[in-house]
Amino acid sequence: MDIKSLEKAALSSRALSMDAVQKANSGHPGLPLGAAELGAVLYGEILKHDPSDPAWIDRDRFVLSAGHGSMFLYSYLYLSGYKGLTLEDIKNFRQIGSPCAGHPEYGMIAGIETTTGPLGQGLATAVGMAIAETTLAAQFNTAKRNIIDHYTYVLAGDGCLQEGVSSEACSLAGHLKLGKLICYYDSNHITIDGKTDLSFTEDVGKRYEAYGWQVLRGSMYDFEEIARLTEEAKKETGKPSLIILASIIGKGSPNKAGTNGIHGAPLGDEELALTKKALGIPGDFYVAPEAEAYFKVKQEAWKKGRAFWQAEFDAWSEENPELRKDWDFYFSGKAAIPEMPGFNIGDKIATRTAGSKNMEAIARANQNLMGGSADLKSPNAVTLADAKTFSAETPEGRWIHFGIREFGMAAISNGIQLHGGLRAFCATFLAFSDYLRPALRLSALMKQPVIYVLTHDSILIGEDGPTHQPIEHINALRAIPNVTLLRPADAEEAREAWIMAMEKTDGPVLLIMSRQNLTVFEKADPEWENMIRTGAYIVKKPEGAPEVIVIATGSEVNTALDAVAKANANKKVQVVSMISRELFESQPEAIRNAVVPPGVRVVTCEAGSRMGWERWAKPEDIMSIDQFGESGPSSKVAAHFGFTSDALAALIDK
Amino acid sequence: MDIKSLEKAALSSRALSMDAVQKANSGHPGLPLGAAELGAVLYGEILKHDPSDPAWIDRDRFVLSAGHGSMFLYSYLYLSGYKGLTLEDIKNFRQIGSPCAGHPEYGMIAGIETTTGPLGQGLATAVGMAIAETTLAAQFNTAKRNIIDHYTYVLAGDGCLQEGVSSEACSLAGHLKLGKLICYYDSNHITIDGKTDLSFTEDVGKRYEAYGWQVLRGSMYDFEEIARLTEEAKKETGKPSLIILASIIGKGSPNKAGTNGIHGAPLGDEELALTKKALGIPGDFYVAPEAEAYFKVKQEAWKKGRAFWQAEFDAWSEENPELRKDWDFYFSGKAAIPEMPGFNIGDKIATRTAGSKNMEAIARANQNLMGGSADLKSPNAVTLADAKTFSAETPEGRWIHFGIREFGMAAISNGIQLHGGLRAFCATFLAFSDYLRPALRLSALMKQPVIYVLTHDSILIGEDGPTHQPIEHINALRAIPNVTLLRPADAEEAREAWIMAMEKTDGPVLLIMSRQNLTVFEKADPEWENMIRTGAYIVKKPEGAPEVIVIATGSEVNTALDAVAKANANKKVQVVSMISRELFESQPEAIRNAVVPPGVRVVTCEAGSRMGWERWAKPEDIMSIDQFGESGPSSKVAAHFGFTSDALAALIDK
Repeated sequence: MDIKSLEKAALSSRALSMDAVQKANSGHPGLPLGAAELGAVLYGEILKHDPSDPAWIDRDRFVLSAGHGSMFLYSYLYLSGYKGLTLEDIKNFRQIGSPCAGHPEYGMIAGIETTTGPLGQGLATAVGMAIAETTLAAQFNTAKRNIIDHYTYVLAGDGCLQEGVSSEACSLAGHLKLGKLICYYDSNHITIDGKTDLSFTEDVGKRYEAYGWQVLRGSMYDFEEIARLTEEAKKETGKPSLIILASIIGKGSPNKAGTNGIHGAPLGDEELALTKKALGIPGDFYVAPEAEAYFKVKQEAWKKGRAFWQAEFDAWSEENPELRKDWDFYFSGKAAIPEMPGFNIGDKIATRTAGSKNMEAIARANQNLMGGSADLKSPNAVTLADAKTFSAETPEGRWIHFGIREFGMAAISNGIQLHGGLRAFCATFLAFSDYLRPALRLSALMKQPVIYVLTHDSILIGEDGPTHQPIEHINALRAIPNVTLLRPADAEEAREAWIMAMEKTDGPVLLIMSRQNLTVFEKADPEWENMIRTGAYIVKKPEGAPEVIVIATGSEVNTALDAVAKANANKKVQVVSMISRELFESQPEAIRNAVVPPGVRVVTCEAGSRMGWERWAKPEDIMSIDQFGESGPSSKVAAHFGFTSDALAALIDK
Repeated sequence: MDIKSLEKAALSSRALSMDAVQKANSGHPGLPLGAAELGAVLYGEILKHDPSDPAWIDRDRFVLSAGHGSMFLYSYLYLSGYKGLTLEDIKNFRQIGSPCAGHPEYGMIAGIETTTGPLGQGLATAVGMAIAETTLAAQFNTAKRNIIDHYTYVLAGDGCLQEGVSSEACSLAGHLKLGKLICYYDSNHITIDGKTDLSFTEDVGKRYEAYGWQVLRGSMYDFEEIARLTEEAKKETGKPSLIILASIIGKGSPNKAGTNGIHGAPLGDEELALTKKALGIPGDFYVAPEAEAYFKVKQEAWKKGRAFWQAEFDAWSEENPELRKDWDFYFSGKAAIPEMPGFNIGDKIATRTAGSKNMEAIARANQNLMGGSADLKSPNAVTLADAKTFSAETPEGRWIHFGIREFGMAAISNGIQLHGGLRAFCATFLAFSDYLRPALRLSALMKQPVIYVLTHDSILIGEDGPTHQPIEHINALRAIPNVTLLRPADAEEAREAWIMAMEKTDGPVLLIMSRQNLTVFEKADPEWENMIRTGAYIVKKPEGAPEVIVIATGSEVNTALDAVAKANANKKVQVVSMISRELFESQPEAIRNAVVPPGVRVVTCEAGSRMGWERWAKPEDIMSIDQFGESGPSSKVAAHFGFTSDALAALIDK
């Protein structure tokens, strides 16, 4: 190991990091200064990667879970020679247009494997990446050749380890015996408020041992020790490893190192000068020539490593044409849409149940669909046909028993999706979407097409009561950018919703499913299967121009059809099923007007809060639920709130 | 210990639970059947309580964290003789109008200390109750008398212990050495999906030891052992205790015990009959006479215990008139509103900073205000003046270093508030309100006036980028019933917002604060300090009738005033500051029309998503941010999104 060069690499990372933060007058120098040695040995000696082909499938993944230390990542991606990242970009740290955003943003630079910043989630997402690696290896490797064989590395700080999401995910990682997951813990004993002993005195190592992890300890400032501990971590193939590295936040700064003052603020001109002097940094945005030379040599070696893999992959492809066909499908990013089960008008079936029948067909046609439920497999009615459960014993399995860990589940699903090769889904009750919301936000921000199956979608679930009855959830989810929320109204719409979800490539899809049975209804629009893709279509069309349009979603389309039958027969009522309000609102005016002609009175009906329906109807024409629910049988709850077809009929006739 | 009677109590609880679930044809018999022995010894022998005065301040608290087992709680509250709970209520389990809801709902029956059902939160909330007990004891007990001296007990299941929120809260509980917190773990190895070994094989005991807890083990079916372990838990005054009780879900059911089939579904007529036969239960909704007699005797003893405390309290009151005065204030549920700092028109100050100055005055006047931040004390600008930090060494402290644990923080805050005597607040970035949202929902459902300080309220925070820039959050929070969201527009409004928050008694208040400086502006309405309590008032009034009304919130009122100065001077523009949209929308029409006269064109401006503004303006007149943000300096981010006073001026002039 070329210690001298690694030292120069660490020096250069420190130099770039503190200058970038100083120039931006904003940012977090504490971690990059404190963990620079790990970066040098990680990017230089440990990672299997090829910056000239950063999308290489069999690369090691590295996740900077402590995303505020983004300059750690940028500086090492730059030093390693990642394509599309220039010194100019680093000089424009935290400026619009620079890929070097305040926190690492997925898609901005190859080498950023996931967006981090919201603490704890990076580590949880890495668990998903390690799951993906494990199952792909089991499915594609042969006795002769390992074409999937890489590690997932994480750098986590105190914040990541305090957040509950990492507890959930790491407990599962231990259960699943993910031996190729290795987490470095930058243990600097400092958080924003001060020393960790203000709030965090638990024995982290013991906790991780309790999860079934191997726990190793060392110093952040000993390259050889870090490399040796990493080898030890790799040798333990039956457990993930936590490597606790004792460190000093802001190391190198004579007056601020070891204090919370350096966590999230520039050093200031004076301290910057003192630090540069102390470290022997001769100028601004300094890159030591020895570091440059070191990485230049590495780049050649990395290319060779990658070429070796390519040769293996080619030979494997030749030997296993069927596997190769599957591989190409897995990594195409495209879904296969199979023949789906049909339903008959008049059938009474919950959309969750109809969804499950569709999902069965989809899961057979898309063997790379992977996921599960947060311990609600049967109530969520999610299934992967006859797929095995993913476990240490059956790593080829695709069903994941996530346990009662919604947030961890969603963050892991992000990781499975981000890894490549697999399509991720997860499931829980709609009311508990709150638990996983921060991870869903990252799915949306990263435009990852994770499918969220959210069942039990309104007060009409009945007896479980207000804690389990969604009120605000549908609108609160719609409000997140890049989210496609689909609330199918019957079994046929549930089928189309599943197809729309599978076809989506650039953002999460939420399938909002009913617990209760709904009647499959006739659709007035013969083109409804096309029109539903605009977000809405006409279910019932009156003779002549409509006097009232009822816009309903999900189970309330049944309510609307019942209401029309009860309303004044002379009233010309059009019923619109709006499976996705946001999607419909984003359509060109002509499409919108064809379904909801302007100037006609609109009544809306959705068993959830009113927010946003004001665009479509006057406040007094919105039928909604704007208070917490009640525990009781579904029909009684509906009657209690006056949320019935009778009430809707009266509103139509008003 | 009268084992025979306890056995009959357990038998009666089982009988009531399975009959109630069967009659409702809905519910969860697994826990009540599996943990009935614990209930008997807990309610009969362990708890210090007085069902004839269930609000007794010094009672022990019991939290059924595994809320689905609600019949466990209802049956023992009934057997213990809690006021206002009848056998008829239990027969109406899960029916509208019965206080025996599907999951325990706070406020429905005295003895339900918190709403549970969303897993993990009960345990976290109990941590808050134990914190409240500890600090109140430190503040009020004297060398002579302990008037606050009770325990907080929890029953948690596998689900509670898998959820990250309990990890966060229990890590903090260990750190804080909460020796009077005792959690029974109903370890039945079964979850909804099947055996816990599908997903949950960690060493829970070791994990809790790592948190700094005492861990004890025993059987669910040995009354004396449970009592002995509880005594051991009490003896360990420097650590919370986890008592792991090995149990069998659905115990008593010959064919379903020990399986997931009995977790959440009625036994069915046949199995119910078999179970009754096996247990020797002679009828429906059976209460054994021995159990009745046993609790009757207990009731007398409990009353005596409570009378003894009352005598102590009276003596203490006499001895400590000053403390008694504080006590009365603490438990009055009312806030003191002190002289608040003034601000001058033209001052430039962030609302978070202005809020902090107000908070300082409020904290001095309300010594029972308790809370803290999730490791963002300085950025959130929250303070309790010169209060000490709450810790094992300084239990009289009121500031809580919650650590990087937002969800745990909010659930703990619910517990502090629910305990009585204290007013709870907590703080984080608005973008991370997603992390704590499930606990906020429970604050709202339980109408607990927890104050949430949520700073860094829009894209205008600048450099930290999209993960830290709220977009959908304000509307997503507004959508929750019973939530009062206040987004003050300058330092003066921040002061009024704090007063409104302190005066609130029946639901959470969210204070949405800016990171950036805002100019204190003149208010056209001389009555604005009253009018702001309606949710909105007129900031700028044109001569004569307005042609355009600009409704803005928070920092955008500054933007609106700048825009009006730039817009066509002949245009008659009225500017309205809407500190709370929901509050304003709930006002009578006359009040609304006085501020926003109908028929006038309205333009809205808020640096967040558009949802709900459609009630006030046409889609093209809504200035909003409906996509994820960007990392860059605040003014550049604003320019990038065209979210400027120039753009608003152009919209006004359109």
